[in-house]
Amino acid sequence: MVQGANALPRNAANYAALTPLSFIARSAAVWPQAPAIVDGHVHQSWGDTYARCRRVASALVRLGVGRGDTVAVMLPNTRAMVELHFAVPMAGAILNTLNTRLDGEALGFMLQHGGARVLVTDTEYAPVIEKALAALPAAQRPRVIDVVDATVSSGKRLSELEYEDVVASGDPAFAWEPPADEWDAIALNYTSGTTGNPKGVVYHHRGAYLNAVSNIVDWSMPRHAVYLWTLPMFHCNGWCFPWTVAALAGVNVCLRKVDGAAIFDAIRTHKVTHYCGAPIVHTTLLNMPDSARAGITHKVSGLVAAAAPPAAMIEGMERLGFDITHVYGLTETYGPASVCAKQPGWDALDIAARTERNGRQGVAYTMQEGLSVRDAQTLAPVPADGTTIGEIMFRGNITMKGYLDNPAATAEAFAGGWFHTGDLAVLQPDGYVKIRDRSKDVIISGGENISSLEVEEVLYRHPDVLAAAVVAQPDARWGESPRAYVELKPGSTLTVDALRTHCRAHLAGFKMPKAFEFCELPKTSTGKIQKFVLRERARSTAAIE
Amino acid sequence: MVQGANALPRNAANYAALTPLSFIARSAAVWPQAPAIVDGHVHQSWGDTYARCRRVASALVRLGVGRGDTVAVMLPNTRAMVELHFAVPMAGAILNTLNTRLDGEALGFMLQHGGARVLVTDTEYAPVIEKALAALPAAQRPRVIDVVDATVSSGKRLSELEYEDVVASGDPAFAWEPPADEWDAIALNYTSGTTGNPKGVVYHHRGAYLNAVSNIVDWSMPRHAVYLWTLPMFHCNGWCFPWTVAALAGVNVCLRKVDGAAIFDAIRTHKVTHYCGAPIVHTTLLNMPDSARAGITHKVSGLVAAAAPPAAMIEGMERLGFDITHVYGLTETYGPASVCAKQPGWDALDIAARTERNGRQGVAYTMQEGLSVRDAQTLAPVPADGTTIGEIMFRGNITMKGYLDNPAATAEAFAGGWFHTGDLAVLQPDGYVKIRDRSKDVIISGGENISSLEVEEVLYRHPDVLAAAVVAQPDARWGESPRAYVELKPGSTLTVDALRTHCRAHLAGFKMPKAFEFCELPKTSTGKIQKFVLRERARSTAAIE
Repeated sequence: MVQGANALPRNAANYAALTPLSFIARSAAVWPQAPAIVDGHVHQSWGDTYARCRRVASALVRLGVGRGDTVAVMLPNTRAMVELHFAVPMAGAILNTLNTRLDGEALGFMLQHGGARVLVTDTEYAPVIEKALAALPAAQRPRVIDVVDATVSSGKRLSELEYEDVVASGDPAFAWEPPADEWDAIALNYTSGTTGNPKGVVYHHRGAYLNAVSNIVDWSMPRHAVYLWTLPMFHCNGWCFPWTVAALAGVNVCLRKVDGAAIFDAIRTHKVTHYCGAPIVHTTLLNMPDSARAGITHKVSGLVAAAAPPAAMIEGMERLGFDITHVYGLTETYGPASVCAKQPGWDALDIAARTERNGRQGVAYTMQEGLSVRDAQTLAPVPADGTTIGEIMFRGNITMKGYLDNPAATAEAFAGGWFHTGDLAVLQPDGYVKIRDRSKDVIISGGENISSLEVEEVLYRHPDVLAAAVVAQPDARWGESPRAYVELKPGSTLTVDALRTHCRAHLAGFKMPKAFEFCELPKTSTGKIQKFVLRERARSTAAIE
Repeated sequence: MVQGANALPRNAANYAALTPLSFIARSAAVWPQAPAIVDGHVHQSWGDTYARCRRVASALVRLGVGRGDTVAVMLPNTRAMVELHFAVPMAGAILNTLNTRLDGEALGFMLQHGGARVLVTDTEYAPVIEKALAALPAAQRPRVIDVVDATVSSGKRLSELEYEDVVASGDPAFAWEPPADEWDAIALNYTSGTTGNPKGVVYHHRGAYLNAVSNIVDWSMPRHAVYLWTLPMFHCNGWCFPWTVAALAGVNVCLRKVDGAAIFDAIRTHKVTHYCGAPIVHTTLLNMPDSARAGITHKVSGLVAAAAPPAAMIEGMERLGFDITHVYGLTETYGPASVCAKQPGWDALDIAARTERNGRQGVAYTMQEGLSVRDAQTLAPVPADGTTIGEIMFRGNITMKGYLDNPAATAEAFAGGWFHTGDLAVLQPDGYVKIRDRSKDVIISGGENISSLEVEEVLYRHPDVLAAAVVAQPDARWGESPRAYVELKPGSTLTVDALRTHCRAHLAGFKMPKAFEFCELPKTSTGKIQKFVLRERARSTAAIE
């Protein structure tokens, strides 16, 4: 009997490699006229989008792109970017989306390390791409295809090949082949490590397919959802949403830049139902005048990924009438692989409790096998006591293949059969993961681990605090001690003493910052606080003090 | 580079076998208090349901059930039936759900052929199960576990082992193991062939997982959907909905019998949002008095599987305010693997056009790779002209492993890399499949294929026709010719001549029935017209005439 039922083998009728490419083929067949992409004045159906993707795929093959080759793209959230998420794997190749905020040196490293055969680049980025290409040996320079957007002025051409000419030259009936194995690579995404060279995270068709579907299940997304591109597609392939939207025959509403007025306009005009973004996206919306959102009456759902979304953001988005869900993940997990799944009853809690509940990293995605907080060495799971700190670990199908050509880093990341995130967390009694810190952000004081995030949360609770960051400063007696950098709201007259009193009411003694400094905090172009700058500053300050 | 990205191997951190068992584990962890099962007076949470499933799994192992063994169940849509969809595969075993309408001989064959080690049976079925067991050699008789429902009187016990004692004796923390391979069998479902022995259709964990998720995507099912069990779970494992509901942390509202008043009561009391069923389920609802559905104001969505749902049913369900979607599939495709996906604009059509559009077999499920209409011999796809008849074929992950211990039937079913359904259809110009007939129901007259369904649809369009069936009768000149059996509505005075005139207005000459007979049609206990009875009758009638 065991033999009987389990001896039946795979064949072409009962097995197909999982690939998100099947989603666009189906949506184009079933809803050829339904809108797929809105990009400025361009309105494009699923039938036309599929035909254009096949054209580009055939043209790439003609340009010499073969199975397993890399095609890099340097693009904002435009029609070409959506299309290349299908066209490149249809050509059997691997899509390497480049972070458009990087400098020429970093981009040059990625083009070389990833071995890009072709680079598709928006002329907006011509200056930095020129530098990146100049740094490469001539033999390793990829063939360049320019994407020219007439609405953008900084349009220096780097190549005689233009994307629309490539589209026009291609075969709309190109007979692309699915991957030979669902384990074959579909994408390559470089992490932006603060030290050392970036690591190339490789995704496979199986994982991209399953994460795209899990987005639907975990966010209860309906057929024909209208999705606004406030999250960069170069970021973990837009958390796999290009493939999610194709599975739903939804609409990709493109957005070249995160701009409050443009976002509200798009939501109003195209009846956007879903969007994702970093906290800066949501803060941008909150800071817009009420008039900007006039006329938006339908339900809008947003995903936010942040260590701990501040209460003001959660409350503000609720006031806007937006339904926000908190997610967590890394480049290595295709973007979000955990979600702060809402519980019945949370809506009735006060704002402080609601913020605490909704601000957790939560539980594994439905289609991710495991999420766990474990001792980094022994791999023993921490008790669900809300206080014991361990490392967040994932396992399952929504985890990368590994790092490209970096067996040491791959082995380290997967040690013991779990993917080690490097993030520290506790497990709440209800089983929800609550992040405490990045390993490198933990402050070790007298042998005790202090979560800088926990101290920051206390600081954020003071109504005068606009932003806060806590880092380790060298301490002769304790090894390290916490130092708080605080940006006050305009017009605040808060004193250090008053803030210290506030902290003392909420923190154990050993967690108290030894020093407070009021200043403007250094931030990245996306609004993320640059802790490494503050850590440097704390080190030199301590040396002087 | 090809080497690089594609050389990264699987490991415990980045690969997990797809299995629907992961859904119950997750829902129990995330929403332990959320309702999972409502069965009469029993209200049971996901936490408790998971614990009970683990108890049963551990008890089965203790009873000697091993990996790849078969556990048969003879159960109505009750709590035990839901639980065994998880408990049996948690024990590593294969779930064989028996059709509760079968006779002892057929059941005996299945128990023997499937090699059941254990049989879990509701005492309601004790008489027929006694017969089935008596027909088996003593050495092949499975260990019997009785499910005793106090609300049912016909409760003869067949065993000293009672299900609730099994539950009580088990380990609620049993460390079940996922399948070693996602290709391992999870279920065994016997087809009810009209000739020869039933065939044992084997499902694997991968297919059960993917179909369960595709139900969510194709029906836009939200988190915590409330699902009413109007479809027998012994039928293709309830189209995989036990696993779908677990993935959504939804509610299984159990139902021992299809009864109009009980269905409306359940919809009203438990705020049921989704249900599935054969046409008889929907007809039952339509025939209830208006008062039965008082107080139901929320949206209810239903799936119906039927060759061609009559206009009266589509229109009637719309009048009820229910949203009905037509699906198609076979035991071999885990239940539905195609859906008549709705198009924008259909709602605005008149009822005849709406019925035609919504009554098609449609397009492949999102997670089924291929649906096609092809020449049975050459496998060439038919043109999308709405007239060329071919055989419906499926391929992809929502297709069975094969038939148990029946390599000849398996090879025939999968010939040429497609699963052959035996159903004949045309492809409409918009790519939707429209069924024409079962191969055996086609009438071959003078070398022309006549679809009995097409002739029946014309008969159904006459307002006096309640039911109609068209079968082949032997014809000296043409080989076969169509003969129509028609059941008129009460009080009708329609004549054969008038009906013939009606048909002539809508049918090509060679498709016209040679004879019409007004009578009550023979039906199964589920209301399905027994064409084989009529075919017999037509044969003997022709011999006499």
